[in-house]
Amino acid sequence: MERTMIAAGFILLIWCQAAAAAAAWSGGSSRPPTVPARRYTSPLRRQHATAGDGGGGVAVPPMVQYETRHYTQRLDHFNSAPSSYATFQQRYLINGTFWRGKTSPIFLYAGNEGDVELFTNNTGFMWEAAPRFGAMLVFIEHRYYGKSMPFGGKEAAYRDAATKGYLTVPQALADYASFVLSLKANLSAPAAPVLVLGGSYGGMLAAWMRIKYPHIVMGAVASSAPILSFYGLADPYAFYDRMTDDFKSESKHCYEVLRDSWAVLDSLLATKEGSALLKRTFNMCNGSSVEDIPSLLESAVVYAAMTDYPTPSGFLTALPAYPVREMCRAVDDPSSGGNGTLARVRAAMDVYYNHTGAAACFRGEEEDDPYGMYDGWNWQACTEMVLMTYGLSNDSILQPPWPFNFTDVIASCRNATGLPPRPFWIETEFGGYDIGNVLKRSASNIIFFNGLRDPWSTGGVLKSISDSIIALVEPKGAHHVDLRFSSEDDPDWLKQVRAKETRIIARWLKQYYSDEAIST
Amino acid sequence: MERTMIAAGFILLIWCQAAAAAAAWSGGSSRPPTVPARRYTSPLRRQHATAGDGGGGVAVPPMVQYETRHYTQRLDHFNSAPSSYATFQQRYLINGTFWRGKTSPIFLYAGNEGDVELFTNNTGFMWEAAPRFGAMLVFIEHRYYGKSMPFGGKEAAYRDAATKGYLTVPQALADYASFVLSLKANLSAPAAPVLVLGGSYGGMLAAWMRIKYPHIVMGAVASSAPILSFYGLADPYAFYDRMTDDFKSESKHCYEVLRDSWAVLDSLLATKEGSALLKRTFNMCNGSSVEDIPSLLESAVVYAAMTDYPTPSGFLTALPAYPVREMCRAVDDPSSGGNGTLARVRAAMDVYYNHTGAAACFRGEEEDDPYGMYDGWNWQACTEMVLMTYGLSNDSILQPPWPFNFTDVIASCRNATGLPPRPFWIETEFGGYDIGNVLKRSASNIIFFNGLRDPWSTGGVLKSISDSIIALVEPKGAHHVDLRFSSEDDPDWLKQVRAKETRIIARWLKQYYSDEAIST
Repeated sequence: MERTMIAAGFILLIWCQAAAAAAAWSGGSSRPPTVPARRYTSPLRRQHATAGDGGGGVAVPPMVQYETRHYTQRLDHFNSAPSSYATFQQRYLINGTFWRGKTSPIFLYAGNEGDVELFTNNTGFMWEAAPRFGAMLVFIEHRYYGKSMPFGGKEAAYRDAATKGYLTVPQALADYASFVLSLKANLSAPAAPVLVLGGSYGGMLAAWMRIKYPHIVMGAVASSAPILSFYGLADPYAFYDRMTDDFKSESKHCYEVLRDSWAVLDSLLATKEGSALLKRTFNMCNGSSVEDIPSLLESAVVYAAMTDYPTPSGFLTALPAYPVREMCRAVDDPSSGGNGTLARVRAAMDVYYNHTGAAACFRGEEEDDPYGMYDGWNWQACTEMVLMTYGLSNDSILQPPWPFNFTDVIASCRNATGLPPRPFWIETEFGGYDIGNVLKRSASNIIFFNGLRDPWSTGGVLKSISDSIIALVEPKGAHHVDLRFSSEDDPDWLKQVRAKETRIIARWLKQYYSDEAIST
Repeated sequence: MERTMIAAGFILLIWCQAAAAAAAWSGGSSRPPTVPARRYTSPLRRQHATAGDGGGGVAVPPMVQYETRHYTQRLDHFNSAPSSYATFQQRYLINGTFWRGKTSPIFLYAGNEGDVELFTNNTGFMWEAAPRFGAMLVFIEHRYYGKSMPFGGKEAAYRDAATKGYLTVPQALADYASFVLSLKANLSAPAAPVLVLGGSYGGMLAAWMRIKYPHIVMGAVASSAPILSFYGLADPYAFYDRMTDDFKSESKHCYEVLRDSWAVLDSLLATKEGSALLKRTFNMCNGSSVEDIPSLLESAVVYAAMTDYPTPSGFLTALPAYPVREMCRAVDDPSSGGNGTLARVRAAMDVYYNHTGAAACFRGEEEDDPYGMYDGWNWQACTEMVLMTYGLSNDSILQPPWPFNFTDVIASCRNATGLPPRPFWIETEFGGYDIGNVLKRSASNIIFFNGLRDPWSTGGVLKSISDSIIALVEPKGAHHVDLRFSSEDDPDWLKQVRAKETRIIARWLKQYYSDEAIST
């Protein structure tokens, strides 16, 4: 049973599981903002995130101010059937206060799999760079997420495979392309250079947008974009191997405790007495069960590795600086119940699920989805975006080992969607094989940032391809850490990464103005 | 009424009108192969074009030998709805006899709007270059043309707008991309470089394929590809102005006779006596009417300019070398009925419609469509491919002048398809604006050939963009003349164009093998 749970979980992996994890520890506290309290945040409040938070209960810096607007988007760009002409309202958030006029840059965030406000509130790099570049900031929401629902609303959009069929990467990119041209026309700014930025799946979109629409975006900052995490390109064990290494690097003991904890949990769950012990050790919320503990622990381990940021963060849940280190400290701490595995596991989970101390119990259901990620990403991950994060090596921190079996992955996806997945389609459409030789001849102006602590970096572009397709690889970095708001406590390497990105963007803009004979 | 006829005709323009023109003069001769006799050619014979002809009744060189195969193609690449998973059999013609093995090149013809056999039989450049490069030759048929019909057959495929909706450029390109990867996998030749070639709309597809799928094709020969013939990029009068200039360059008198002939024809058509005179002068076939004469003359003028080849040709109809010159010679010939406009017009039309002398009467209907171009192109030209060939200047050889009115064009298309055209979509998807600055930073390895006699060259890329995006511009050239079979009578400039293309391809291949560290 345990195996089945893990395998199912992998399919959903990228950010959406994190949302579940963030919601898993449900608080009894009456003092928002806290993670669990978001469950009770009114929709109205969520619509006005400027007055709200940046996710994880962390306040959004006051500079995050924007207008919410909508663009009338075509349902299907690549088909001329009458049904393709249907439209929907695509939401975008815009701030023009820094913009210095018609030839000044537009920084476009390529919205990914969630409410665009989440990304708007967390992409501090854009907010901090805008004044320097005199840039307009625009954050466009991905179709089928947040408020950008075809067919009039989420229920209709997600009704069945026929309505969900329009949720594909090429459609999303064409949305952004159409939107940019319309925006520039409305601004009477046809010559304004557009830089596209994105993190994670949004980073993949940013890179692909520069590759496929170079006439629309003059450069891309693709942060932690695993564009090579597809079958035949990536080692399917690398993702979890990297995560394992993250924990090993903090403490061999911590790694061993966690690696061995799954068998302990399984054997306890197999008996009444064991379950009773688990109940006493892990205070589960009403409606949640100790059966949920393994998947909660799994999520904590995975997302701590991904968001192993050097300063306290609150992207999806409130976390201390270096959460992997903190989890391992908790595991290794002699006061964590002597040698008892359960107490150590509980201590690790407390770091991840209850850093603020405001939560009273663990919530196991994955039904909570504050950023609206699940339904869309589950579909995408089993149709086009079949990412290679499936195999568990023998010494993985997640146990038992899980040999990679592509046939099983496909069958599992087919079972989930009712349709055969297309695991080779993304490579067909966007490439990946021999990417260096291809892109050096046919692309330019892309920054690929990857932090090597981030398991997703195993699917990233880690070597510079040309003097304008630049891999920035930071051994201590985590998932799109470069795009986060800066902090006085940022380590030097992080300051340097952002400074490098800023210099590269400035160079691209200079070249653009020179090409276009625009004096600045 | 005359104005309406001309406007309607413009919308259909590119190659499809030529097919009508080629079929317009219907022969009573019993000796095939002749142009008109094609109407009675059995379907079976057409399927085996190797034993047939190259169009226009001209024999195909014996080196044109291929196998006919089919690839199971997805109906909609960009949508995940269950209906998108439908498949159809896409035809391709293949010759592997010159291929030197797994790292030798594959030359792919990007099929355009017609039966792929037509292009296979006429793209002599590929046949002649294959032995030198050890290249495999593959000609892929465009969806919705020839035998490559979704929904099981042409009738179902063209049933209504919903079934025709899958006929779009991005779908066609994705077809080719998917096909190439499958072909290479079947050949166990993942490293074989693929060069894509095409003429006219096929040239547009070739260029866009290199731009959008550089990971699949390593270079493109885009011959007479009017990728800039879109609204806002091209002067909408340029197409017919160029055609006018072609005739002027041969003879001012010829130009004047033809320019003034429309008014003469109109006034004759307005009276019974005039119509009777026309009937005596132009021997119309049964079922055809003298009302058809203006559009027949128009087609003759347009297509003579496009196919103003330096040697006798038979692409769509059998023509003498330099047909514009020949038409003008006929018009200017004192024996052409003294000063009578009618006799001169008739003489010009004889050059175009009855060069072989085998046809007994003029056929006016446009219903004949030997290469299956009409239905598909009419749809494409009014949905995505709204090419800028609409305006007639005051001194145009076609009269009366026809001021360009974009609103009217759109309304006319909307009337034809029942759907609003998307005249800006191609520019959104493929670019065009500021193409030099864009492509020099983000593309490589494209040859844009244009012959300036060809009116379509007014929408072509006429300036080299980089050292690998090369415009070959030939003042004396016509529509994709470079891709035609060579002839001993070819002028030097044509020999040199083909030699240049061959050298450039060799250079690209050398670079590819060097990039890939493949020894040759």
